[in-house]
Amino acid sequence: MQFKPLEGRKYPRFSAIKTFFRLPEAKPTQNFDVALFGVPFDGGASYRVGQRFGPQGVRELSSLGRGYHWEKSINIFEKLKIADVGDAPTVPIDLKQTYARVEAFVLDLLKNKKKFIACGGDHSITLPILRAFHKKHKKPLALIHFDAHFDTYPPAWDCEYHHGTFARHAVIEGLVDPKKMVQIGIRGPFAVKEDAEFCKKQGIKVFSVDDVRQQGISKIISQLPKFGTTPTYVSFDVDCLDPAFAPGTGTPVIGGLTSYEVQMLLRALPKLNLVGADVVEIIPQYDPTQITQLLAVDVMFELLAQFARR
Amino acid sequence: MQFKPLEGRKYPRFSAIKTFFRLPEAKPTQNFDVALFGVPFDGGASYRVGQRFGPQGVRELSSLGRGYHWEKSINIFEKLKIADVGDAPTVPIDLKQTYARVEAFVLDLLKNKKKFIACGGDHSITLPILRAFHKKHKKPLALIHFDAHFDTYPPAWDCEYHHGTFARHAVIEGLVDPKKMVQIGIRGPFAVKEDAEFCKKQGIKVFSVDDVRQQGISKIISQLPKFGTTPTYVSFDVDCLDPAFAPGTGTPVIGGLTSYEVQMLLRALPKLNLVGADVVEIIPQYDPTQITQLLAVDVMFELLAQFARR
Amino acid sequence: MQFKPLEGRKYPRFSAIKTFFRLPEAKPTQNFDVALFGVPFDGGASYRVGQRFGPQGVRELSSLGRGYHWEKSINIFEKLKIADVGDAPTVPIDLKQTYARVEAFVLDLLKNKKKFIACGGDHSITLPILRAFHKKHKKPLALIHFDAHFDTYPPAWDCEYHHGTFARHAVIEGLVDPKKMVQIGIRGPFAVKEDAEFCKKQGIKVFSVDDVRQQGISKIISQLPKFGTTPTYVSFDVDCLDPAFAPGTGTPVIGGLTSYEVQMLLRALPKLNLVGADVVEIIPQYDPTQITQLLAVDVMFELLAQFARR
Amino acid sequence: MQFKPLEGRKYPRFSAIKTFFRLPEAKPTQNFDVALFGVPFDGGASYRVGQRFGPQGVRELSSLGRGYHWEKSINIFEKLKIADVGDAPTVPIDLKQTYARVEAFVLDLLKNKKKFIACGGDHSITLPILRAFHKKHKKPLALIHFDAHFDTYPPAWDCEYHHGTFARHAVIEGLVDPKKMVQIGIRGPFAVKEDAEFCKKQGIKVFSVDDVRQQGISKIISQLPKFGTTPTYVSFDVDCLDPAFAPGTGTPVIGGLTSYEVQMLLRALPKLNLVGADVVEIIPQYDPTQITQLLAVDVMFELLAQFARR
Amino acid sequence: MQFKPLEGRKYPRFSAIKTFFRLPEAKPTQNFDVALFGVPFDGGASYRVGQRFGPQGVRELSSLGRGYHWEKSINIFEKLKIADVGDAPTVPIDLKQTYARVEAFVLDLLKNKKKFIACGGDHSITLPILRAFHKKHKKPLALIHFDAHFDTYPPAWDCEYHHGTFARHAVIEGLVDPKKMVQIGIRGPFAVKEDAEFCKKQGIKVFSVDDVRQQGISKIISQLPKFGTTPTYVSFDVDCLDPAFAPGTGTPVIGGLTSYEVQMLLRALPKLNLVGADVVEIIPQYDPTQITQLLAVDVMFELLAQFARR
Amino acid sequence: MQFKPLEGRKYPRFSAIKTFFRLPEAKPTQNFDVALFGVPFDGGASYRVGQRFGPQGVRELSSLGRGYHWEKSINIFEKLKIADVGDAPTVPIDLKQTYARVEAFVLDLLKNKKKFIACGGDHSITLPILRAFHKKHKKPLALIHFDAHFDTYPPAWDCEYHHGTFARHAVIEGLVDPKKMVQIGIRGPFAVKEDAEFCKKQGIKVFSVDDVRQQGISKIISQLPKFGTTPTYVSFDVDCLDPAFAPGTGTPVIGGLTSYEVQMLLRALPKLNLVGADVVEIIPQYDPTQITQLLAVDVMFELLAQFARR
Repeated sequence: MQFKPLEGRKYPRFSAIKTFFRLPEAKPTQNFDVALFGVPFDGGASYRVGQRFGPQGVRELSSLGRGYHWEKSINIFEKLKIADVGDAPTVPIDLKQTYARVEAFVLDLLKNKKKFIACGGDHSITLPILRAFHKKHKKPLALIHFDAHFDTYPPAWDCEYHHGTFARHAVIEGLVDPKKMVQIGIRGPFAVKEDAEFCKKQGIKVFSVDDVRQQGISKIISQLPKFGTTPTYVSFDVDCLDPAFAPGTGTPVIGGLTSYEVQMLLRALPKLNLVGADVVEIIPQYDPTQITQLLAVDVMFELLAQFARR
Repeated sequence: MQFKPLEGRKYPRFSAIKTFFRLPEAKPTQNFDVALFGVPFDGGASYRVGQRFGPQGVRELSSLGRGYHWEKSINIFEKLKIADVGDAPTVPIDLKQTYARVEAFVLDLLKNKKKFIACGGDHSITLPILRAFHKKHKKPLALIHFDAHFDTYPPAWDCEYHHGTFARHAVIEGLVDPKKMVQIGIRGPFAVKEDAEFCKKQGIKVFSVDDVRQQGISKIISQLPKFGTTPTYVSFDVDCLDPAFAPGTGTPVIGGLTSYEVQMLLRALPKLNLVGADVVEIIPQYDPTQITQLLAVDVMFELLAQFARR
Repeated sequence: MQFKPLEGRKYPRFSAIKTFFRLPEAKPTQNFDVALFGVPFDGGASYRVGQRFGPQGVRELSSLGRGYHWEKSINIFEKLKIADVGDAPTVPIDLKQTYARVEAFVLDLLKNKKKFIACGGDHSITLPILRAFHKKHKKPLALIHFDAHFDTYPPAWDCEYHHGTFARHAVIEGLVDPKKMVQIGIRGPFAVKEDAEFCKKQGIKVFSVDDVRQQGISKIISQLPKFGTTPTYVSFDVDCLDPAFAPGTGTPVIGGLTSYEVQMLLRALPKLNLVGADVVEIIPQYDPTQITQLLAVDVMFELLAQFARR
Repeated sequence: MQFKPLEGRKYPRFSAIKTFFRLPEAKPTQNFDVALFGVPFDGGASYRVGQRFGPQGVRELSSLGRGYHWEKSINIFEKLKIADVGDAPTVPIDLKQTYARVEAFVLDLLKNKKKFIACGGDHSITLPILRAFHKKHKKPLALIHFDAHFDTYPPAWDCEYHHGTFARHAVIEGLVDPKKMVQIGIRGPFAVKEDAEFCKKQGIKVFSVDDVRQQGISKIISQLPKFGTTPTYVSFDVDCLDPAFAPGTGTPVIGGLTSYEVQMLLRALPKLNLVGADVVEIIPQYDPTQITQLLAVDVMFELLAQFARR
Repeated sequence: MQFKPLEGRKYPRFSAIKTFFRLPEAKPTQNFDVALFGVPFDGGASYRVGQRFGPQGVRELSSLGRGYHWEKSINIFEKLKIADVGDAPTVPIDLKQTYARVEAFVLDLLKNKKKFIACGGDHSITLPILRAFHKKHKKPLALIHFDAHFDTYPPAWDCEYHHGTFARHAVIEGLVDPKKMVQIGIRGPFAVKEDAEFCKKQGIKVFSVDDVRQQGISKIISQLPKFGTTPTYVSFDVDCLDPAFAPGTGTPVIGGLTSYEVQMLLRALPKLNLVGADVVEIIPQYDPTQITQLLAVDVMFELLAQFARR
Repeated sequence: MQFKPLEGRKYPRFSAIKTFFRLPEAKPTQNFDVALFGVPFDGGASYRVGQRFGPQGVRELSSLGRGYHWEKSINIFEKLKIADVGDAPTVPIDLKQTYARVEAFVLDLLKNKKKFIACGGDHSITLPILRAFHKKHKKPLALIHFDAHFDTYPPAWDCEYHHGTFARHAVIEGLVDPKKMVQIGIRGPFAVKEDAEFCKKQGIKVFSVDDVRQQGISKIISQLPKFGTTPTYVSFDVDCLDPAFAPGTGTPVIGGLTSYEVQMLLRALPKLNLVGADVVEIIPQYDPTQITQLLAVDVMFELLAQFARR
């Protein structure tokens, strides 16, 4: 199989069954490099909900996706074989069951030696993905985490797991190395002062929006942990962006990054040993102009370009 | 306290903190007749989601609510002391915990001898309400159930409880008497033929939309079980209506009742020993013209008029 | 000048500056039969607002308007010279000033011997129109009033005039003859029992939605006052329709007429000495699918056909 | 291959790549009975546009589709092997090229002995489908045509083909037999009196909305042409419905059919030798509550049940 | 009473009756520091309307509000007792009456020694608030005014008072000291050249968006009048922001401030003797993604932090 | 005739028949300087569609337009006589016919010695405008082209002309001088690497968003071709802006210019011999908050100010 997208100049971009980037649907056992898949789940969401429709929304908008990266001078579809492997199985009303099924789904991809980008879903879905890596490789990953929130928050309503806790569990379970972890886009207000302490104690590098604006992007990049060849994961919550650029999300926070800053940050990242990534917290129902879904497509494109640089 | 709504000709209807029908907020221990409350929960929903915002949406639209029932010649606010008792506690990501908390909340109302109307929330929230009645009174209720769906469906994704199972559990747990139970507005298509069998076996009276249209409302009413003085509960899922009349719902089905038919059915009901009721499956985010939320207000009004007839 | 609409098969209906029905703009002194104009005002509205954008919204949708009435076998644009005379002057924040300006604007039309249809605006704008007739002709009009509400309500917030009082003032000021007045589409609930009494005392014929449904349209028509050659005015509030058919309005009420019933009622009216009419309470901002605006166009078409029957 | 839809109780209905009814994607050469496909095209539209996004919108909503027809007691997925064969090739800015490609696409289906339902697209796409039948079978089809419009209109802007002419061309080209042709849902106003004459001259049976309402559905059905075993095609334009039931369409007309009437009509049709069908003029961008797309799914379901009855 | 907000980790943020920041409702006579209230009024608006729904919209979104200010290291809910005192009384169709009622409402707050933030309403509501201060203290206030417009405009449609005149009246009536007044965010185009002259003559400091961008925020701050201990009022019109960041407003102007610039400006203000503030011109109906309402919540938070710094 | 807009302080901005900037409608033969007209066409669009409604949408929002340019200290309505000449004739389903009609329409304007700004329509409409110039003046124009895309793309679906090819044809047909041509706002990703080569070969100056951000606006301006007195055309595609600032467009691309940058660029342009301009690719249906339409009004205002500077 070719693993090339349908060409827009042959088949209009509004036509055909919607897969990510108009790529072929495939099974993990087939011969390709990077898998794209959805994790339609919002059972961890604390406020707005509808992240379950994120994957289909992003698939639709990804029809506008193109392959040639002007700044990097690479065509991702020439460098990589990419396929849509469908959606991970989820249970809309049972987070624990969903965790087990997503973990198994990702483990299968890893066994088939696939890199991948997951499209959420609320942010709770990152934890089972990271657990799958750990089950496979037994070593903590480096983590680049874009978000308005630390996601190291305490339980809520007596629930240990929700969409604001994945980062805390990932550190505590040893899935990621806090010394090789960075958070970008964080901003207040917080519920309580203590919300900022977990990261401080764990030595996680945190770059707020103020940091990005006051220091500039290249300085931020220069302060990143040295990822080297450590298998690295990127988790991208679209609420790191200002709601003007990404309104279609679960818990928007005023004063976020612009779409251009996000592009600059992703492009300025060093060549990584990127093993997986996700883009999460997209809610089409709050995205009447589709700009959030389109942004998610762009982030997936930049992440694919990172895969292609290897 | 007066338990009268704010007057629209003194305080514009768009003003003031939003309670149901602009009524005072009160505690269950206070001296009033009927409690209105929200159950903001959508952790049982299988497709669209956002029923958690139902109560606040209906509170907002209920500012347009008025008290004098032209056909019945009664003013509900003169006949009854009605109050908004806030929202039942829920856990957005844990159906079991939510069930426990909603049941306790309703039990407290019952202990304070309140009648009530609950505003959902997805339809899974009816079960803990019915359980509270059973815990208090140890006797099955009569049930008038408006819906497009039987809600007697099997488990889904290995989950015993979801928003399409409350009626099955209610019967099996003995919370309602299937011989004094009626379903109105049911229509196909169904997933499988077997979906219709539970009701048949249990002897539950089912009136489809075809039945309503072909026989007429008065004939339908004449075939209802004899409720007599049996404590009776009304559960109203807005998807009994056609999506043209109630688009803002979780699992809309084409070919439903009109708003007028619903009014006629509610008004034609005999004088009941109504002890509680709910209006569920309202999703403001899918209701851009607010007509579903306004319809829910109207249903609450008709139910309050039923309370007032006693 | 021709006073014919732009032809859709020559100039696409989405093109050209938007006038009512794509008709020429004209001055009252020009030689035509029926004037169409807007009254962009919402300073009398008690709840939703934005009726000031009604005229431009209806102008836009009227591009879909056509001239041949199938049932009546007449082409309104062959029978009548119709023109768009622009908008009546209004003062958005001063109802009294607006009344004076609208009255003067209509008086000028009457002096130029024009029939007309006004496009509102909230329902408060009907009163100065009726006053202009009275100033010119010194005789009460017959009135056919489509509405969910009586509009004979008492003052609100100490304001004698608002969008729910025009009918009361029209009767009291002798602008209309209550014996030749009919209201169609009325329905509850009401704020208080007394809201229904003014009409009863004045002997105004009221047909509720129940009346229309239970008696049928031809029986309703047979009970209308005998209008004969009395100069007759039709005031059409789109909230006489159910919100499913006309969501874009200021104070929607559940359980209203269907668009088909409205068409049947308008077509079944006897040949009238129609001198003027209005269509009011259209709010484009609450009409995302434009069906309310399109309905208003249809009502204007039926009223023009009534003019054309003479 | 099984040609069964994904089960909603195993895989949540909001998950998975969107195909019609969650069915497998297949090639025309595979072994199944009925093909479903999209024709994403709006190059024939005279007013609103965006019908090109109709197929993807209907695919999305068809996730709510179910298989068991309560009234007919048949499960379409047990009776039939159904598959999604993707979208017909179209050229967004060239109607003639599109006609050639759609005709070839359908001809290929016919050569593979498939029945099918096409999902439009504006109504201009029906003509090349009918031409394909004629190229294959050299005999005129019977045609059941649901629409607000005759679609026998003259050229517009000097263009012989547009979305209001397919029926005229189909008759003139001998693709359908006007004596075995019926139009249902037609209503005024028309641009000119002459618009109604083509059908009259050709002896096409026309049932207006008035006819349906005044005579009732069974009487309408009794007057249909005798289709017998004539290969029959159904073309369903969603604007036959009232805009309250199908707002998301190109040229809505007030006063249309209800969703229930459409269901009744489709169910009351005699057993046909149905060879193909289409559902057209769906515009998701004008369908914020998705009810038009859901209605289209329901129509497809009823048509599939007609196929299943054979 | 505690005057603490409901905790989001105990009671989900989508639940409970909506008050500002989920705070208790209280009467002015109770023992707290800062009152939050709505002024639901749009009777002064010249173009878009619906500011009357601003308070309820902001109350809803303020459920996402949090208390800990990261940059200032203060928790506003620990430093201050804050309460929601409901809405000021307004008369939707009478600006003069509204002015009297709002003034009396604010005077009552001042007599009870409350600081406050008002949530509008259109910008005309600031004048009666300032009048209340003058009636109480007989001394002009300092004024920090964020806006796209000067609001010193002449009468319109012969109306002396409208939503573009409050600043002119405030200066002329001696309610504010023009030497201690600053306007930020101003930008063209203007209707006429003369629109800029009032401020120049009065010596009001004006910082355009160009000034902010070209000079930078710290330089702007350094040029502010010395407020010292002068009682100071902040009036924040959300149209100071670019419509991309605040679309839901009455008279948007292209080329405005970003949400981040607004945060930086508010945080960079010196410690003020802040006595009152308002956030105005929010229209939920034009804010489909809710970002304007969320921005208003953020501005209220920054203003509360200013109160908390004292 | 005066050729002045209706005054907002006399006639509310929401009133009156909608022309561009509330200016008089005129014929090309009348005595004015600059013509504004619409080109309602989207027959060249490859993805989203509805640009046909662009002119009416921009006309509506232009009611908010004002005449005094603060930075340039000129009132465009004092310096220039401007009129709305209606819409160019178009054929929605025939690009070739549309090209002929638009060319003839513009030629007529040129023969009447009018400058003009066209309001699109998709970007394919620029080509016939440029052809009209060439037919009249036989000399290539200078071209300032704002866009996210080169619009020098190859044919698509075997169609030589579509909305991404105008710049290529303009160069090849000699309508514009590539040495006096500049493109601003260009950004990736591209479909293929070759997409960037036409401009390079032709020596067209291209400024990407990166260029604008990294070099600053004044440096960009300093590198522009020397336009001198060469007749110059400005073609402004709103997708040069980031979708946060201009969501209502056909093929949005993440990472674009801000509204402020666009204003700065337009204002920093040297005094040009501007002979015509267009603003294209506005789709009201994707612009729920109207900010794209308002942006288009602002661009028209800046272009009018450029005309006024001469």
